[in-house]
Amino acid sequence: VNRELMQQAQARLDAKTKPPGALGRLEEFARRMVAISGTGSPDTSKKVIYTFAGDHGVTDEGVALYPKAVTTQMVYNFLAGGAGVNVLARHVGAEVRVVDVGVDNDFGDLAGVIHRKVARGTRNFAKGPAMTREEMLAAITVGIDLAEQCRVEGIALVGTGEMGIGNTTPSSAIIAAISGKAVRDVTHRGTGIDDDALELKIRVIEQGLAINQPDSTNPLDVLAKVGGLEIAAIAGLVLGCAANGIPVVIDGFISTAGALIASELHPNVADYIFAAHRSMEIGHSFMLERIGVEPILDLNLRLGEGTGAALAMSLIEAGVKTLNEMATREQAGVTHE
Amino acid sequence: VNRELMQQAQARLDAKTKPPGALGRLEEFARRMVAISGTGSPDTSKKVIYTFAGDHGVTDEGVALYPKAVTTQMVYNFLAGGAGVNVLARHVGAEVRVVDVGVDNDFGDLAGVIHRKVARGTRNFAKGPAMTREEMLAAITVGIDLAEQCRVEGIALVGTGEMGIGNTTPSSAIIAAISGKAVRDVTHRGTGIDDDALELKIRVIEQGLAINQPDSTNPLDVLAKVGGLEIAAIAGLVLGCAANGIPVVIDGFISTAGALIASELHPNVADYIFAAHRSMEIGHSFMLERIGVEPILDLNLRLGEGTGAALAMSLIEAGVKTLNEMATREQAGVTHE
Repeated sequence: VNRELMQQAQARLDAKTKPPGALGRLEEFARRMVAISGTGSPDTSKKVIYTFAGDHGVTDEGVALYPKAVTTQMVYNFLAGGAGVNVLARHVGAEVRVVDVGVDNDFGDLAGVIHRKVARGTRNFAKGPAMTREEMLAAITVGIDLAEQCRVEGIALVGTGEMGIGNTTPSSAIIAAISGKAVRDVTHRGTGIDDDALELKIRVIEQGLAINQPDSTNPLDVLAKVGGLEIAAIAGLVLGCAANGIPVVIDGFISTAGALIASELHPNVADYIFAAHRSMEIGHSFMLERIGVEPILDLNLRLGEGTGAALAMSLIEAGVKTLNEMATREQAGVTHE
Repeated sequence: VNRELMQQAQARLDAKTKPPGALGRLEEFARRMVAISGTGSPDTSKKVIYTFAGDHGVTDEGVALYPKAVTTQMVYNFLAGGAGVNVLARHVGAEVRVVDVGVDNDFGDLAGVIHRKVARGTRNFAKGPAMTREEMLAAITVGIDLAEQCRVEGIALVGTGEMGIGNTTPSSAIIAAISGKAVRDVTHRGTGIDDDALELKIRVIEQGLAINQPDSTNPLDVLAKVGGLEIAAIAGLVLGCAANGIPVVIDGFISTAGALIASELHPNVADYIFAAHRSMEIGHSFMLERIGVEPILDLNLRLGEGTGAALAMSLIEAGVKTLNEMATREQAGVTHE
């Protein structure tokens, strides 16, 4: 990112009709948006949230509260505009784009879906690798392609989201593999499983790590062996946004697992990431720290889909607007300090 | 507030296409908005922020970084739409209404200002009472009248804001007087004063409390002796909103001092209050705890004007929209647990 533009943006913020720094993190959002986009006055009107859908073979182990069919059902709900992410994206003026990267359902050429299916879900990582290396790379490429497309379209701000029954399980597996932390310390209740199911989920992840032996120093190996297709696509989207100078707002726990893979691959990727919120899932804060980003919201959200990203995008936009629209003390005839 | 409607709202949220509780505090906002407004599907389109302007005699003691004239200058900035609150209110679709309740300037019949001046600023509370009891009551009445007007207009959500050079000083004095806490523990840097000025500010507040001997069990006595005209108007607005069943979003440190007065006067007032954010000012968290409200945002804001209220109003509206617009599992054909 452009550090000189960042300093110029802060100097312009300091000339506004407010005490220096008084808009707190809104000022951070504004100067980072300038530095990432490379333009002094970013136009934030074009905002897109990509909601990647994929299924997970590991649900065969009974780790999820809802049946796999719900992933497909929710894709139809996204198209109908009735899901949480639809409501919140409309509220903030963002567009939701639904990407089938790995749903265990044949959507044919259903309109409204971006059809980039790599496989009908991952394999059960408790028994072997979730994906082949080729599948993993194909899913990452989906995200990279979409980021490329965003640059062409002039999208100012990208959000990540996901839908995939069972996908907190691979997310916890990814953190455990990369950090070496105990599975128990990074595994939580997902959509709301009880104590027994939580113990089962921990055992399944431990088994998956023992069987697959992912190389903790190789994020792509971890991703292929215990990750998910939608998580890989998010990793690719984050990488692609960084490569194309597009700010990307990562949603909650699962999106952050994807962003962690991207960030582990290149240290500069974090410069392009905004963390939407602090999830209820334990292990989330650890991932955010490792990436080096501070969450914007803390509203006990745990829905995913891109819901938190939508809300955070509006706050980032608010910061940019203070830079673009507030009067300077000079313009307003306000006495300097 | 209507507890039965609150439970009905939560039941409706639980039927939506999401795990129960997965939208965290957005669900709290939705059910509280229902309970306060008494309508199952609140229409949040009409949102107004009242920015009350007033001056403070205590600035004679040198407690503020900026000269008193800035209060007047900022009123003109509000009218021109160039201030932080204007930008953020536009962003969230709220209207800013500027109320002169105590600016030390003759605005004549200047268009765009709600002219309700009680006095040209308070007196220096380091030397005697800031206001007479009559002035204090008149300023409270301004807020009550405006809340009444909001009911007539069908305003769904009211925000508080203020502009008054020096007004963190009376705010800290109010908390110290009501809580009995040491002035030092509730007094901070306002717009950014240095260590020496902070020591002076603490001494001035201590002197004001010693000279005026406000009755800590009588919020109105505290308000009159060491408060401010805009703080009194905010107290009145909060009281009026509670009386009229209108949810009110309090901004930062100074607005919370006004809300604290209102809340001390009647225990049910807190049911109508949303706290926009956690201010950088020390003493703020204590006030929020005493009122019994949890801040929505934590973005290191310390500008006032209603800037934090604007952002929080949009999040509250987002919560209401999930209730109003999300599909149920039934409607979307999504498998139940």
